[in-house]
Order: sequence, then C-alpha cells, then structure tokens
Amino acid sequence: MTSTPTDTRRAHPSGRRHLPDAPLLAAAEGRRPRHRPVWFMRQAGRSLPEYRELRATTGMLESCFNPDLVCEITLQPVRRHRVDAAILFSDIVVPLKAAGVDLDIVAGVGPVIAHPVRTAADVRALPRLVPEQVTPISDAVRLLVDELDQTPLIGFAGAPFTLASYLVEGGPSRNHEHTKALMHGEPETWHALLGALADTTIAFLQAQLAAGVDAIQLFDSWAGALTEADYREFVMPHSERVFAEVANAGVPRIHFGVGTGELLGAMGEAGADVVGVDWRVPLDVAVGRVGPGKALQGNLDPATLFAGWDVVEREVGKVLAAADRALEAGAIGHIFNLGHGVPPDTDPEVLTRVVDLVHRS
Amino acid sequence: MTSTPTDTRRAHPSGRRHLPDAPLLAAAEGRRPRHRPVWFMRQAGRSLPEYRELRATTGMLESCFNPDLVCEITLQPVRRHRVDAAILFSDIVVPLKAAGVDLDIVAGVGPVIAHPVRTAADVRALPRLVPEQVTPISDAVRLLVDELDQTPLIGFAGAPFTLASYLVEGGPSRNHEHTKALMHGEPETWHALLGALADTTIAFLQAQLAAGVDAIQLFDSWAGALTEADYREFVMPHSERVFAEVANAGVPRIHFGVGTGELLGAMGEAGADVVGVDWRVPLDVAVGRVGPGKALQGNLDPATLFAGWDVVEREVGKVLAAADRALEAGAIGHIFNLGHGVPPDTDPEVLTRVVDLVHRS
Repeated sequence: MTSTPTDTRRAHPSGRRHLPDAPLLAAAEGRRPRHRPVWFMRQAGRSLPEYRELRATTGMLESCFNPDLVCEITLQPVRRHRVDAAILFSDIVVPLKAAGVDLDIVAGVGPVIAHPVRTAADVRALPRLVPEQVTPISDAVRLLVDELDQTPLIGFAGAPFTLASYLVEGGPSRNHEHTKALMHGEPETWHALLGALADTTIAFLQAQLAAGVDAIQLFDSWAGALTEADYREFVMPHSERVFAEVANAGVPRIHFGVGTGELLGAMGEAGADVVGVDWRVPLDVAVGRVGPGKALQGNLDPATLFAGWDVVEREVGKVLAAADRALEAGAIGHIFNLGHGVPPDTDPEVLTRVVDLVHRS
Repeated sequence: MTSTPTDTRRAHPSGRRHLPDAPLLAAAEGRRPRHRPVWFMRQAGRSLPEYRELRATTGMLESCFNPDLVCEITLQPVRRHRVDAAILFSDIVVPLKAAGVDLDIVAGVGPVIAHPVRTAADVRALPRLVPEQVTPISDAVRLLVDELDQTPLIGFAGAPFTLASYLVEGGPSRNHEHTKALMHGEPETWHALLGALADTTIAFLQAQLAAGVDAIQLFDSWAGALTEADYREFVMPHSERVFAEVANAGVPRIHFGVGTGELLGAMGEAGADVVGVDWRVPLDVAVGRVGPGKALQGNLDPATLFAGWDVVEREVGKVLAAADRALEAGAIGHIFNLGHGVPPDTDPEVLTRVVDLVHRS
C-alpha cells in the first residue's frame, strides 16, 4: 500500500486512518466540526429500497457474515444520504452466533435462542468469542475502510446486559422477567454470565478496531428496563470493562440505549465519550444528567419523520436548539441522530433532507 | 335500604359510601392510614387461577359488559390478597366499544379497531359515549359497592391520548407513528379527536362515580412515548379537562402511565391527587418531579416477583424506604403498588405475601 501526503488512510501510528476533518470525530473529541455531524441508527436497513432488494433472497444472519454484503449495505446510506458516518451493518447477536451459540434471527420476531441460558451450568457452557470466528466481519471492515474515503466507520456491538437478556429470555422480551430473576436471585451466576458476555463483546470490538473502525457504538438496547440502582450494581461494571478494554484504540466510544433517561449519568460514567440520548429527554436536560466533558448524540423522535416536512423541520430545529444549550452547559460536542432507530417504513427522502438541514444549521 | 350508625355505606352526603378508615383513601388524602395501603394494577387478571377459570369460556369484552362477571372478577383479588382497594375490572377500550366503535380485543394482540381514525372526517364520525351505553358497568359498580364492605373501589378509565393511540394506529403500537404524525401534522384534527375522547372518558367516569366508586384511576398507558413538550401541548389540556370534570365527586384521582419519568410533574399538574410512578424512578426522586402536596403510588418492579422471596422482601423494603423519604420531602401519602401491571404468570402467593409485608411495615 502506498501512502502519499494527501492519502490519509493508514497514516495514523496505530495503523488506523487519520481523519482529522471528519465532523463526527471532531464533535466526539471536543474539536470544532466544519458542520454539525449527523447519522441515523439503523440507517442501513429496511427504509432503503436498495437494501430491501439486496436482502430479498438472503437471511439476516447470512448477510451479516458476508463481507461483500456487509460492505455494500453499510455504504448504501452513506451514498444516498451523505451522512457523516457509516455504521457497520450487523446485529446484536452476531458475536454470539459466531462463538457457536445456537440461535437464529426470525423475521418479524427477532433473535430466537435454541437453549436459553438460565443456570450456572448454562453459563459455564457458554462459548466465548475468539477473534478468528468473526473474520468475515473483520474483512468487511477492511473493505469498508478502503471504500469510505473520509467518512468514519462506526463499529457495532451489543452491551453485555442486552446480550444477556436475549440469552436468558430466549429471544426479545417485554418485561425481561427471567433476566431480572437471575440477576436478583442468583447474583454470582449473573455476574459470571455478564463477565463471559463482556469477554465476547471485547473480542468482537477489538476485531473491528484491529481492522480499522474509527469509532465504536455499544448498544445497550434494553438497559432502560432497569432502575439506576440495578444498572449500577449488576450491569455497569461489565460495560465499564468493555469500554476500558477498548480505550487504548483511542477512538470515540458511543453508548446508547432506549428509554435510559434515568441512566444517562451512569452510562456516561461507564466510560463513554459520547452518550446517546433517546427522544424523551431534551439534550439540554440530558447534559445535566451526563455532566460536562462528554459529547451527546441524538435525539429527534423517529415518529416525527411521518408528520410532513414542516413538522420535521420544526422538530429538527428544536433538537438543534436544545443541543446548543447543552453545548453551552458543558457538552463538548453534538452528533445529530434520531432518538431511536430509523423505522422500516420511513421515506428515505426525508432522511436525506434532514441531513441537508442539519449540515446547513 | 336500612342505615345504622355502624353501616357507613351510602352515609355520605353525595350518596357515596363514607369510608374514613380506609387506608387507601387516607393515604390519598394526606391523612394517616392505619397501615400502608397496597393494591396491584391488573390484580384482577390472569395471575389468578380463579380468574382463568371464569374467563375460560368468555371473551374479554363480553366479560367487561357482564355485571355479575365484572363484580366477581373485581372481588377475586380482594378476597385472596386482602388488598386495600378493588379496581373495577375493565379494559381501556370498553367506553369506545360501548359508544359504538367497531373493535374487538384479540387474545395475544390486544384491541383491534376495524376502521382506524386518521382524518378530520373520521374524527367527526366518532361516536361519543352517553352514560346509558355503560349501564352494565354502572350495574357492576353498584353490585360491588354492596359487596365490598370497607374496601374502596377504584374506577377505571383510559386517558384521551392512550385511547387516541389505539384508534389512530388501529391497535397496540410500539412507536405510535400514525398517532404522532396526526398530532404534529394536523393539530386541529388532533385536538378535536382528543376533545371527543375526553368527552367519552368523562362520561365513563361520571357513570362510575354516580354508581358509587370511591376513587378513580386514569390510565395513560402510552403517554411515556411522548416528550414532555409534546405531552404539555397535545395531551395535558385534555387530561386536565377529564380531571376537572370529575373533581366535584370529591374522590381521589390517580394518574398513571408506564415510562413516564419525564412526565411526572406534568401528569400531577393535570389534576391528579395521586401520581403513579413506574419502577424506573425511585419514589424519593419522583417526589422532586411531582412536587409536594400529592400522594405517590408505586413502584416495585414487577419482574422482581419472579426472583424468589428473599429478593422480593429486600426490594419491597427499598420501595418502602424510598417512599418514606418521599413523605419526608413533601409527598402527602404513599400507596404501595407495582410499577406496572401484574405479569400474567406471577405466582399469586407472592402477591399475597407482599400485601402482608407492606401491611406489617
């Protein structure tokens, strides 16, 4: 590989790309971005006709382990919307599948685990991921880094609690009853489970970092079901270890969960550089919970996208205004995003217009 | 009907029972209860084998319009658990069904509306409830008041926003996209819809009050999907009117929604005497959001009920301790409850033990 003064790829001492002008990285690191960065959770997905076409004949898990498909699907929203970040197309359960857990992703249901994990013996039998098991994902990251030019690539992983909820419940759950019963009723088994899952998450993220991702986002999708006290006792130490173990990569670490208004401070303390905020908490309120010195990401209500452009424009304006107040109150940066994933039936034209609107702000 | 000095039924000037010693009413009104009152949302339901037996051959809506069944189902948890309140067995959509909206409750799905309400014409065509349409429910209340001795009966109604979400979406919804699109995109139509639904809710509650309920609870089950700004602009005026229109009954008005941590202050301001709190916000934090002068209801995480008695006992203790701090901080009373409804597969023995534990506290 040749490197010239204008070719910034792989120029960083770590072997990682050096992207000093990327607005996403500037905002995450407290530098002044040339425009407000914006990307969307689930931007690579069913809202895009080109995605639906590609996925028509290929199952979700199969897609996630096909480097060319992962690369193409990850690039689609970057090409279409000109967002300021690509996020690796993947699924929360990919590292579990790779490690050998018997599971499938069932359309209309979500992940289904063949043998739920509910006892100490189940936890002992749980395989831990070794990096070689996610070679297709590492390959996809390498393909993407070569294709993405100056756009940063965000690595993707589920946090230990959310992985645990899938494993213990056997699939998606509304009330997380088995999970919380294990957590409260058998704390030793619980901590052993979350420790094992933290190992897997660390291995998954380190594989992505070694292949060149420019930031990571740790999704604790279900953490909002917990009280802050339970989060701090049973979950935070494990998420903290994940963040600590990837700190030496020197890339921004983003943390997000939906419905986590009560947990924003703790989720920041766990080691995030950027705290993602769902739409329920205005960013100028969120900064008070997170404290100064971190960047915030969010938080347009995704349902707004269906209310017509005038409403979208007004609501984006409100988010930007709240973000500006958060910046005055000590947040070091703002990355515009939705407060949750892109709904599948979103008109992608609206997303493209939101990107333009945020960039012009 | 005979009345003796010891028969307090119907002794109140309003014709309503006078229950000065009922712990629930004392706590709600800022008087000192002889023990801490406790009841459970969805206490009359699938957790009870006697309920499952009664309902085996009768559909949900059919049950809700059968006075004898409503009476029996409402009494079951009072007999079994010795809770401090009965709550009228009903469903959010009962007044809509009674008014003539074409809907059904489908097992495993929830309410399904034949023709979703999405236009100004749909709203104009929406029937409003007249009290005669809920005669079976009024009859059930009268049966219950005669059966309940000193235990208060809480009336039941859904708040306008939650009713609107069912009508606009056509059934239960995760993201309330159509609802929010109507709310933001066509505010006049929205307010007309919520006005009509407030009329129906008021008529439904007034029918229950006229028949003798001792308190009411207004469930805004889905309000937690809203930002506080949207709640205050699009929802609160209508809930406020509901509370105002039933104020002259002089009974405690309880307000609850799940995931409403950001809305607790506004939901109190809407006119509630008692604010129900989901499990995510400790009661000593909730009091700061609600402000002094109101009672709080809640808020054991229902998932705790599956974690074994030692855990239940410890977690109940934490709720009681937080409630005591809330009382010191200005809450005028505490009504123990779960932070959400009783999960269907709860062991009812555990609920009975929780009642005893709270009473001994």
